Amino acid sequence: MSDCIFCKIINKDIPSEIVYEDEDVLAFLDIKPISQGHTLVVPKEHYENIFDVPKNVLNNTMNIVKKISKSIKHISDGVNIGQNNLLAAGQIVNHIHFHIIPRFDNDGLKSWPRKSYNEGQMRDVSEKIKKKHRITP
Amino acid sequence: MSDCIFCKIINKDIPSEIVYEDEDVLAFLDIKPISQGHTLVVPKEHYENIFDVPKNVLNNTMNIVKKISKSIKHISDGVNIGQNNLLAAGQIVNHIHFHIIPRFDNDGLKSWPRKSYNEGQMRDVSEKIKKKHRITP
Repeated sequence: MSDCIFCKIINKDIPSEIVYEDEDVLAFLDIKPISQGHTLVVPKEHYENIFDVPKNVLNNTMNIVKKISKSIKHISDGVNIGQNNLLAAGQIVNHIHFHIIPRFDNDGLKSWPRKSYNEGQMRDVSEKIKKKHRITP
Repeated sequence: MSDCIFCKIINKDIPSEIVYEDEDVLAFLDIKPISQGHTLVVPKEHYENIFDVPKNVLNNTMNIVKKISKSIKHISDGVNIGQNNLLAAGQIVNHIHFHIIPRFDNDGLKSWPRKSYNEGQMRDVSEKIKKKHRITP
């Protein structure tokens, strides 16, 4: 994709701080990190997000997410893995990427607030989801 | 694991609102959701987190994360996938699980703030990470 910034990084048309590379996957530091060592892991083939990435590409990428997470564990107290799909979910670059975020005790980053279901709501939303993948309840 | 709440859910010793199940993987609604339809995807075999989960189990699980994400896309405007490792990263249940969080335009959920690197810091942290997985730079 000629106008994709991650494709340009993969092709070395734009420099990046690479922490891992193989034939299928690249991992490099996010230049605007949530914490030091915040890494992005991307498949070299261009896919937009979780919806269109083929299983073999997803699996190659996840195996490297696991590998980098283990390395980052050694320089942190915990590791968040995140992957955002579509603008409403905060996806800015439309080339599938996994965030690996080093966490530290008392780093002040807050989880999103939790809600509760009213009676019946849980079953309703579950039915809506299941209808989309056609499983028997 | 006899004292693991997710193993109890998998074994149906504790009820849950299941949205998908196969031989290897279970997906069920989080009872304290960030948004309606917030789903947890877990391998049936007990592993603690990304560090100890075998690749085949990770890949089976991710294929279902992709499947459920596609279903949830149809009832939302975007989808966050998250996976937390160790208490410092907000991991409460020590059975590896992937959060799938439906997102909606203007739902008010904020991304964590971004920082900048000082000169040299990026290379330093990259070297620390790479040292842990022994790649040539």
